[in-house]
This record gives sequence, C-alpha cells and structure tokens, in this order.
Amino acid sequence: MVKIAIDAMGGDNGPSIVLAGADIALVRRPDLEFQLFGEEAVVRPFLEAYPRVKAVSTFTHCEITVQMDDKPSQALRKGRWKSSMWRALEAVKKGEADVALSAGNTGALMAMSKFCLRTMAGIERPALAALWPTLRGESVVLDVGATINADAQQLIDFAMMGGAMARALLDVERPSVGLLNIGVEEMKGLEEVRVAGQILKEANLDHLNYIGFVEGDDIGRGTVDVVVTEAFAGNIALKTAEGTARQIASHLRDAMSRTLMGRIGYFFARGAFRELRQKLDPRSSNGAVLLGLNGIVIKSHGGTDGVGYANAIEVGYSMAKNGLLTKINQDLGDYHRAGFARDIADVVIEEAK
Amino acid sequence: MVKIAIDAMGGDNGPSIVLAGADIALVRRPDLEFQLFGEEAVVRPFLEAYPRVKAVSTFTHCEITVQMDDKPSQALRKGRWKSSMWRALEAVKKGEADVALSAGNTGALMAMSKFCLRTMAGIERPALAALWPTLRGESVVLDVGATINADAQQLIDFAMMGGAMARALLDVERPSVGLLNIGVEEMKGLEEVRVAGQILKEANLDHLNYIGFVEGDDIGRGTVDVVVTEAFAGNIALKTAEGTARQIASHLRDAMSRTLMGRIGYFFARGAFRELRQKLDPRSSNGAVLLGLNGIVIKSHGGTDGVGYANAIEVGYSMAKNGLLTKINQDLGDYHRAGFARDIADVVIEEAK
Repeated sequence: MVKIAIDAMGGDNGPSIVLAGADIALVRRPDLEFQLFGEEAVVRPFLEAYPRVKAVSTFTHCEITVQMDDKPSQALRKGRWKSSMWRALEAVKKGEADVALSAGNTGALMAMSKFCLRTMAGIERPALAALWPTLRGESVVLDVGATINADAQQLIDFAMMGGAMARALLDVERPSVGLLNIGVEEMKGLEEVRVAGQILKEANLDHLNYIGFVEGDDIGRGTVDVVVTEAFAGNIALKTAEGTARQIASHLRDAMSRTLMGRIGYFFARGAFRELRQKLDPRSSNGAVLLGLNGIVIKSHGGTDGVGYANAIEVGYSMAKNGLLTKINQDLGDYHRAGFARDIADVVIEEAK
Repeated sequence: MVKIAIDAMGGDNGPSIVLAGADIALVRRPDLEFQLFGEEAVVRPFLEAYPRVKAVSTFTHCEITVQMDDKPSQALRKGRWKSSMWRALEAVKKGEADVALSAGNTGALMAMSKFCLRTMAGIERPALAALWPTLRGESVVLDVGATINADAQQLIDFAMMGGAMARALLDVERPSVGLLNIGVEEMKGLEEVRVAGQILKEANLDHLNYIGFVEGDDIGRGTVDVVVTEAFAGNIALKTAEGTARQIASHLRDAMSRTLMGRIGYFFARGAFRELRQKLDPRSSNGAVLLGLNGIVIKSHGGTDGVGYANAIEVGYSMAKNGLLTKINQDLGDYHRAGFARDIADVVIEEAK
C-alpha cells in the first residue's frame, strides 16, 4: 500500500482534476490509498462521481483553502493547522501517509512544507526537482524554484538529493551528475559552482558519478541523469525550455496548415505528429518533488488535467515505493564517511576562495 | 560606406567562412568595406578566391592568432597589440572602422575589447546581447555571457543599452523592456532584479517602455522587445533554448522517418518543413553584440558557415548605420535628466534594501 495525502482544493480546477487524476492513477497502481483534504461541499460531489477512488479514500473536511494568489506568509497565517494543504502535509508528518501532494500555490506549499516537515538532518535548504524529458529519456533537474543563490555546500546537497531521486525514479544505480555552468572562459562561471565541483570530484561518492560542468544545451541532450543548479537559473531554464517548445509547436502548426500540400502531408503523417505530441506532452513530466524535507512532497502544475495529475501521483508513488528518503540518507552517509562532513567542506570552500 | 574590421582568423574554420560570409553580405549591402586582419599565408588564398570582396578590402598581416582554447589572460599576454583580434578592435578605436567582428574565442574577445576600447562613460560593465527569434519576430536578450551577478545599477544599464540596440535593429521607437525574473511568490526573485525594476519604473524613460518582470517562457513568446538579465541565467536560458530546439527537431525527424506514412507525409509537406527549418535556423540570428564599449563589437558563433557569418556582418552594418552608440548615449542622457544619476540611484538602492 502507498498512501497519498492529497490537498484536493489545490490547482486552477481543484477537485475536478484531482479526482479524475486519482481515478486514472488507480488503474495503473491498485495498491494506492488516498487521504483527501478539502471543503466538503466542493469535494464531495466529485468523490461520489468516482466510486473507485471513493472506495480507497478517506475524506477530511477542512474549512480553509489556500488561494493561488495568497502570499506564503498569508497562507501560513491563515492556513496553518487547518487548511487542506497543511493537513495533507501533517498526515505525512504523523506517518499516516507516505506522500503529500498539492497542485496549489507553490510558494505557500514550500513555506508550509518547511514549517510542518522541517528539513532533513544534514540538509540546509530544500530544492524543487523537476523531471525533464530529454533525447535519452528523462533527467532530474534541480533546483527549479526553491533556493535562490544556493552556495557551494547547498549545491552539493542538491547533487546528492537529485542523485537519490534519480536512483528512486529512473532506475540507474550510480546516476551521472553535472553542475550547470556557463562556458564563457573568462568567467568560468560562478565561484560557488566551481567550489562545489571541486568538492564533488574529491568526494568520489559511491552512489553518484560526478562528471563535471554541463551547459544549458546539455539538459535536453540528456548528457547527465541529474543537472544541479541554483533556483534562479534553474527556474529560468525550465520556463525557457517550455516556451521554446510551445514556440516551435506553434511555428510547426502554422507551417503545416498554410498550404494545401502541408495539410495533405499532415494527413498522411498524423501518426508521426501524434507521437511527437506525446513526446512533448508536458503532462507526462508533471510532478515536481520538494527534496530535503522529512517527508515526500509533490507539487503538481496548477493548470494540469486528470492525466497530468495522475502522473504527479505516479511520481509520488515511485518515490515512496523506491525509498527516496532512505536513499537520500544513504547518500548523505556516504558523503560523511568520505570525510566530507559539513565542517571539513567549509575548510575546502574557504581554501578555494 | 560602412567599414567592418574583421578578425579573419577567428572561428572554427577561420578565413574560409569569413570570406564566404563577406561575399554574401556584399551582395545585400554594396556599401560595405572590409579591413581584414590575419596570417597572410592562410588568408590570402581565400581573398583571391573572392575577387568581389578583395576589391573592397584592405588586408593586414598579423603574426599572432588567438586560439579558441586560449584563456583570456593568455590571449591578452600574447595577442595584445599584434594579434588579428586586437588589430580589428584597434581599427575601431582609431576610428578607421565602424565595427569590429570576430568569430574567435569569446572570453578573449571580451577581455581584449574592454582593454582596447574601454567601457562608455556611465557604463560600468559590458553586456553580450543576442537576437532571439520569437513568435512575434525578434527580441534582444542581454546579458548572455559577459557580466555574471550583475547588480541593480548594471541591470539598469543593460536595459538602456538593450533598448538602444532594439531601436537600432528592430525598428521600434520605444521598445518594451522586461526584467527576467522567476514567478515563485515566496522569493519574488532576486533582490537586484526587484530594485532595478523599481528604479526603471520611477525613471519612466523617453526611449524605453519598462513593462515589469517577465519569465523564461515570455522570451520565446516575444512578450517584450528587450529581455534583461545577468549573464549566468541569460547564458543558461540561451543554451537551454538552443538545446530544446535541437531536441524537438530530432524528435520530429525520428517520428517522420519511422513509418512509411510519415515519410509520405514529409514528402507532401516538405515545403512546410523548409519554412520551419528557416524559422529555426540558428544562422539567421547569428551575431551577438558586445554592448557598453566605445565602439561596436560583434561576436559571431565560431561554428557558423558563410550564411551565418554574413548575418553577423549584417548586424554590425545595421548597428553602425542606425547609430547604436549615439542611441545608447541618448538613453544614458535621458536617464540622467530623469534625476537618476548613478549616485541618486545608489541612494534608492540603499533605501530599497
């Protein structure tokens, strides 16, 4: 059994997509159980509409819903202890659920997660990790939104957490890890990135194959299983890739529909276009993971549909089933055994400056 | 007449693409003149092969060539005063040429440009600006590689320089400008970006329409004419977009060639695919501009061909013809008249902290 605690109010469309998604996920994973949190009057009708989901779910009424435009501080003030988002996180904290999942306000979810679950021992700051479709399959990219201007030690933490996530999700034993950097020689990129790279190289960890710096175009190429960066550049990379994909899809649609020959070609090749659409479908990489907390927290896109939401449930399912938290602790243990406890790393960082 | 001083040795293929590019550019712009710098034995045969280019060019032999893998400090040590790269920049400094152009080592070109031409009065650090194809046409994106961790004042300088470049190149009178930021509410992005936004809003410049923050996916959408960011995130955004475009092109090729129906569809729609290829052709946005120097310096991709190199020449031509440097000085003047001299901005920046 994998138990998922769900903030049923989160997202642009709330319980309608949440329940539809749970229904789809159940078909694939019959050993799922759900704990749903939300406003009874809103959620109940959808719960009744999905009897299969209802049969494996508990429902808890919560008066407060965090709004998509609440500031994190607002959300914490009004929603702590009693909002559907908080209650889902709390279920994980109490050990009643394996995973908390919300399609709600990202900033609020990050703030509440930190407050409710706290960061793991040995981890200073959480990171938001995304699954990124590549030419080779999928890679883990982090941080895409939690910790801006991460320092060298935090980047190393991210490398280990991302490595653990890749082991839990991508079926690789010793994931390859690269630090995102820029290739302009004069700069050699950020100092924090250089220092983190030096330490990762020296630490030579059992569960993590550090291969060096990678550049922006290596992400889509799938050069490494895990791409590590701080949140500002990571979020901009993610959004830029989404924008570029939409832009090319739009150019392609225009080009194919402008002429009769284009339309005939489209008719013949519609199977190929369907295949391409599936490859580029943002729903199939929905479900970012907030790493570094005492519990598994998944963030779904607010605007996704049932298929996308089911994918976020699947990410949570795999993380729980494959022991994400145990794997992160293993990696932290390796790092410490390698003589790279935080205080030693601090000395290396100082010397490198 | 527009006079372009060319480092004929720069790039992965040196003078062969340089001369081919010059020949293509001349057809479109018969009022071009070239000053070529390079090793005589290498350049001369190509010059003889393009009599049209030879007729409007001078050639100066330079013993030293900056290598693609030279560190900027190395390049400066061995190449100052006498390398083909330096001599091209020096031609601009002496007023003998309007534009310096190189497809060589980016770090070396930035270091030599700063050393040879110095930054403009009122500009602290240079920025590398790229032309970015969008759904609406083209936008200027800067900084994509020169100044990492730019502070608020430097971001404001970049906004003005990017605005001037858009006016010179994109035929807009009051370009819209956005600061690249991330939308995660908890953070509201980088502090430097917030402060720069506040000042740009208050300054309300004549030649620049500041519209606020934009995110990564706004770049391809063409939401603004000018996207401003510091060099780390900017370079990663640029490379990530290039990688995503290559990735999608590869998926598309695979999908169309896998089945007979796909191949038939491709046959009919090959006109549409040609159109798409042209839209995505990286050669047509080749030619980044190093802004903020006392002179126009263009960097061509090292791996481009004649068509791409001709485009870099065209960028330089337009910049000179449309008075880029004058326009930057106008914008700096506006900014100072608006009461936002650097020392006043410093106070605002302090207060905002």
